[in-house]
Amino acid sequence: MFNKILIVGCGLIGSSVLRASINKKISKKIFIYEISKKNISKIKKINSKLTILNKLDERISDIDLVILCTPMSQYEKIIPKLNMHLQKESVITDVGSTKSNVDLLIKKKLNKTLDWIMSHPIAGSEVSGPEFGNKNLFKNKWCIIIKDKNKIKLNRIIKFWKKLGSNIAIMDKTEHDKIFAITSHLPHLIAYNLIKTAQDFQKKYKKNLVKFSAGGLRDFSRTAASNEIMWKDIFFSNKENMINSIDSFIKNLKIFKKNINKFDEKNLKSILVNSKKVRKQILELKQDVSKPNFGRDNF
Amino acid sequence: MFNKILIVGCGLIGSSVLRASINKKISKKIFIYEISKKNISKIKKINSKLTILNKLDERISDIDLVILCTPMSQYEKIIPKLNMHLQKESVITDVGSTKSNVDLLIKKKLNKTLDWIMSHPIAGSEVSGPEFGNKNLFKNKWCIIIKDKNKIKLNRIIKFWKKLGSNIAIMDKTEHDKIFAITSHLPHLIAYNLIKTAQDFQKKYKKNLVKFSAGGLRDFSRTAASNEIMWKDIFFSNKENMINSIDSFIKNLKIFKKNINKFDEKNLKSILVNSKKVRKQILELKQDVSKPNFGRDNF
Repeated sequence: MFNKILIVGCGLIGSSVLRASINKKISKKIFIYEISKKNISKIKKINSKLTILNKLDERISDIDLVILCTPMSQYEKIIPKLNMHLQKESVITDVGSTKSNVDLLIKKKLNKTLDWIMSHPIAGSEVSGPEFGNKNLFKNKWCIIIKDKNKIKLNRIIKFWKKLGSNIAIMDKTEHDKIFAITSHLPHLIAYNLIKTAQDFQKKYKKNLVKFSAGGLRDFSRTAASNEIMWKDIFFSNKENMINSIDSFIKNLKIFKKNINKFDEKNLKSILVNSKKVRKQILELKQDVSKPNFGRDNF
Repeated sequence: MFNKILIVGCGLIGSSVLRASINKKISKKIFIYEISKKNISKIKKINSKLTILNKLDERISDIDLVILCTPMSQYEKIIPKLNMHLQKESVITDVGSTKSNVDLLIKKKLNKTLDWIMSHPIAGSEVSGPEFGNKNLFKNKWCIIIKDKNKIKLNRIIKFWKKLGSNIAIMDKTEHDKIFAITSHLPHLIAYNLIKTAQDFQKKYKKNLVKFSAGGLRDFSRTAASNEIMWKDIFFSNKENMINSIDSFIKNLKIFKKNINKFDEKNLKSILVNSKKVRKQILELKQDVSKPNFGRDNF
């Protein structure tokens, strides 16, 4: 499919792209650019035939496909190197969780001769690092690809993710950022905020909460253990949508509080009943399995 | 251990008490009081030797242990029947998620000759109904038992839950309600509120969000699919603590928003990094397993 691909940043996602690419024979040769020595020694164990670069230099000049898998805050540093060394036949993509900001950066910094088709595979975990990568991480998962005028290169990127097992959805960058603010970024922010609130309580009352976290808090702690650099970048780069969704969340929380305060059985029950409908839709759309969760340690 | 026990309300928790009691040979005879015909037919399949009552009458007079497993809003209706028919040697317990309200009700409505030792097994799921019950539901899970002057009956209840596999923690009712407001009730409320916020967004923008819920929203939808009667009762009966914890949550959310708005990298990162510490504690205390979650359908 390609002669040479380059994965820039080889953590959980990068190493999953690597493993899936090896598995699906995506490219004759795979280059990795990674700066963490710890990560490099882990990556070497995955496959001995990789070329691991510690610098983006003339060796990348004839790369067909570059996949950026670093935190988004690194893109600005990487673009000048791509400008300097990459040929115009190449195609660049990324796996970042927000898109309007990347588009701005591309327009501002990337050579006009180069093409960057933005993608966002909806896959990840609370763990980080190449040792957790998995060749099946993208299998049957959505990969969002952002609309682009360059149909030829757009199709190459679509084919790439399809080959890795993803289902493709094409979207406008603004639409993407709005949707994922609600389905992914707000849930993570809320999980972090819940853990912060529990920590405040623990500090104030000197009670051991965590011991009794199995009744709900535990599940949020998993989400709130996600990589802090990645999530800081996401919250900052999707600022407008985050602020709007926090405001909507607070508005609803105040309604919830009012319903509790007034013992408004009818309104409260209607909110609780309605939320089951979403669960039903999620199961129908095969975004989760219906197998009940009783605490993962037990059954 | 007992001659006759009575399980009042036989849904997920009641039928798990039933299955565990049969498994551990807790009692020579087991009585069930259940009003739902659908549930009754499901319960009959569990064991044919049960006595299923459709009325709490003189047949319960020599019961040793009564376990209330109905939604808490039903207790008030049930107490007069217990007053009328139960003997003073019996002991009553419940599995309700809040305790100060139950204590008030006991003081107000229960015959002074009767003893009710409050318990709260920290076990449950997003599913309801006796078909989901499990004999191991309480195994290695915390069961909170509320302090009581009657040491003999307190010890009987402790032994009961220990026999069912629980780890016991003794607590004051006020302390219990404060702790579980944070570890269980607020997380559920937040999950419901997040789904409501997503629904509002979907209605307003006519976008199909749910399709892309795998990036975070999905996990909250599970929690927010929990039984609405049970949760309405919990939110109402723990009103003061719920309102305080909603206020703390909103306060922290506003700090989060300010950090995003001002691109305050240092403060935002410190919140995100700190939340990992809680996850570490939860794993150390064996309240969850460290196996990463990549989406339950995939691996």
